[in-house]
Amino acid sequence: MDGRRLRRRRAARRRRGPHSTRTPRDRRGPPVAGQDLEEGLVTPLVPPSESERLARVVLSRAAEPGDLTVASLVLQLGAVGAVQAQLEPKADSQLHRRLEEVDPARELEQAQTLGIRFVVPGDPEWPLQLDDLTHGRLDWLGMGGPPIGLWVKGPMPLTELAESVAVVGSRSATTYGTTVANDISAVVARAGLAVVSGAAFGIDEAAHRGAVAAGGATVAVLACGVDRAYPAEHRALLAHLASHCAVVSESPPGASVTRLRFLTRNRLIAALTQGTVLVEAAIRSGALNTASWAHELNRVVMGVPGPITVAQSQGVHEWIRSGGATLVANGHHVLEQVGAAGEHLLEVPREEPKARDRLSATDQRVLEAVPLVQPADVTSIARVARAHVRDVDSALRRLERTGFVLRVEQRWRQSVAVS
Amino acid sequence: MDGRRLRRRRAARRRRGPHSTRTPRDRRGPPVAGQDLEEGLVTPLVPPSESERLARVVLSRAAEPGDLTVASLVLQLGAVGAVQAQLEPKADSQLHRRLEEVDPARELEQAQTLGIRFVVPGDPEWPLQLDDLTHGRLDWLGMGGPPIGLWVKGPMPLTELAESVAVVGSRSATTYGTTVANDISAVVARAGLAVVSGAAFGIDEAAHRGAVAAGGATVAVLACGVDRAYPAEHRALLAHLASHCAVVSESPPGASVTRLRFLTRNRLIAALTQGTVLVEAAIRSGALNTASWAHELNRVVMGVPGPITVAQSQGVHEWIRSGGATLVANGHHVLEQVGAAGEHLLEVPREEPKARDRLSATDQRVLEAVPLVQPADVTSIARVARAHVRDVDSALRRLERTGFVLRVEQRWRQSVAVS
Repeated sequence: MDGRRLRRRRAARRRRGPHSTRTPRDRRGPPVAGQDLEEGLVTPLVPPSESERLARVVLSRAAEPGDLTVASLVLQLGAVGAVQAQLEPKADSQLHRRLEEVDPARELEQAQTLGIRFVVPGDPEWPLQLDDLTHGRLDWLGMGGPPIGLWVKGPMPLTELAESVAVVGSRSATTYGTTVANDISAVVARAGLAVVSGAAFGIDEAAHRGAVAAGGATVAVLACGVDRAYPAEHRALLAHLASHCAVVSESPPGASVTRLRFLTRNRLIAALTQGTVLVEAAIRSGALNTASWAHELNRVVMGVPGPITVAQSQGVHEWIRSGGATLVANGHHVLEQVGAAGEHLLEVPREEPKARDRLSATDQRVLEAVPLVQPADVTSIARVARAHVRDVDSALRRLERTGFVLRVEQRWRQSVAVS
Repeated sequence: MDGRRLRRRRAARRRRGPHSTRTPRDRRGPPVAGQDLEEGLVTPLVPPSESERLARVVLSRAAEPGDLTVASLVLQLGAVGAVQAQLEPKADSQLHRRLEEVDPARELEQAQTLGIRFVVPGDPEWPLQLDDLTHGRLDWLGMGGPPIGLWVKGPMPLTELAESVAVVGSRSATTYGTTVANDISAVVARAGLAVVSGAAFGIDEAAHRGAVAAGGATVAVLACGVDRAYPAEHRALLAHLASHCAVVSESPPGASVTRLRFLTRNRLIAALTQGTVLVEAAIRSGALNTASWAHELNRVVMGVPGPITVAQSQGVHEWIRSGGATLVANGHHVLEQVGAAGEHLLEVPREEPKARDRLSATDQRVLEAVPLVQPADVTSIARVARAHVRDVDSALRRLERTGFVLRVEQRWRQSVAVS
């Protein structure tokens, strides 16, 4: 069991590749005081004790996702220690009060009734790529850090997210955008990678549906509890994901959506996946927040271009322009970007070879020298081709037979104007 | 006169900036033997002698554009010397015969009758940026080097091309492509830069028309003589350019188009301009040849993205993807790319500030913590916002007055679901 987990962990580390060697800190200069969690602390290899798990339930219920004070205490003291520290008289009175209210065993029991499990660091299912959030700098409104735990509904183990891609974008997407998100997700899912998104209207929805239609894996990460449907119109979609794949949240069952929770949710989408694909995002789209997290976490950020006349592509174009995102024009480009070295490398696309490509070098050269419109004599063509008249003459006869040139009296022109 | 030309040359060099310090050779490794012309040879500062000019007429008529043997001889021996060398018995017999046939004085006279002038290195009008072709490596089928001279029809002096942009692309363009080419050219032309293109169908045509409509300068560089119209459908457009701006060719009057001449023409479009904008180009579009020349000459290569579902954008996307081209989404982006430092720098576009951006930091934070759907009580909101209940309570009342939140009995939710 332990051997298997170790192998899995090593495999996950291998897949993550550059993340471990090049932290955001390397790119962004020295850390801001107090804005970094302790380095070197990673997920423990052993499953947590029962008291540790219950303490995490308490914290998950009592604290907001992405609360750095709590995350920092947990990393330093463990969850039990963090709860105890917060229960001391001097600690934040509100959190204090909340902590006393929670009955973690009952929470877990209730969740289980709803088919929801609580996955914590040390569990075999814990996605090790979330360790990267331990080293992440703060970004939005003082939020960040690894999650206390993940509430999960659905049969898919979260370890499958070790090979996954986030496909996110505008809620008010165009038909172009949803078509493209659908197609890209289908290719990614067919290649065996899980498609992660936020179950929102527009691109998110198309991403999930594309993966589902391709018979692949897709996971929704929500800003509310996994027992709730937000938006309500996606109740059926979320039910499908919960019964075939997985729906995940940092917030406990029953939690409602808030703007802050959307932002902390975005960091999870970025951290869980190897890369984030932006499909349509206006200048102020929330999807760009996910891209920022992905960038911060050294994940690959990819952008699908669109017409420059459409506002929904503007944010994506800005990211590509500034070098923050790599342009991807299909699912294979995405696979190439997130794949291990050489795994999904693409050849530069070329059109089908044309008939003229099959001509000999001499014939091609002569053909290039034949005028497109006004016929020319063999001497003139020989001059342009810089070849001997005799060779040009025989080449022209070959080209006439194969239909490339036309003879007009004793002069020659190309048979199709291709300018 | 000389002082003015020197200043102009210096200004041109300044504008060209990085070209002088970073030649393609630096980028591409050691030169291939015989593929580089002599370095350090630049345009002479004094006007050419009459015999030199006539010798260039002879060579322009007798040799093909981009003939490196001829270009190399001219750089080493001058045009007169090059003609003499080629007239020696051992030299290429075809060129030899051609050289003897040309009557350069009569050629110039006939051209003048047609309103065509022959501009050669040393003339005040000679575009000094063409010097960069002296250092260029070969590219296509052994062609390259600076032109022997330029045949010009139209009132615009070629020195105005010192500030210019090439806008090129697919002949079989989409409506999106021609609209975009038109708009970008209009912005570029309105900023005082000349728009250079090849007068072909599709993007080229739209580029010229956009600049004309904006009342700006635009120059067509042709693969045939400037007295001819190719394509014939653009006779009126070319006549307009010849009477208001300029039509330019390396080939003498009467010359017809060939594929080779299109390729050598493309190198001129790239060399004359500060940067090349690709607007729609399929994987095998000729416009990509212009982009290759621009890249080779250290000019800025820019690409306008489009729908990934359209073949005409595929070549452009590949160039952006590979890092060969910078994404531009409007004419201002183009100006920013080719402009001198700080000249056309753009601010990153942002949407108009929203009403919520004008709220105080506290009110924003509280608003972010208010649920979007299910109303929550003040204690719960205070916990999410990590603020004191008393402060949250007064913030909620302010937010209610300004219409951001709704009170439902003693609970609160956001008034507009913005997820």
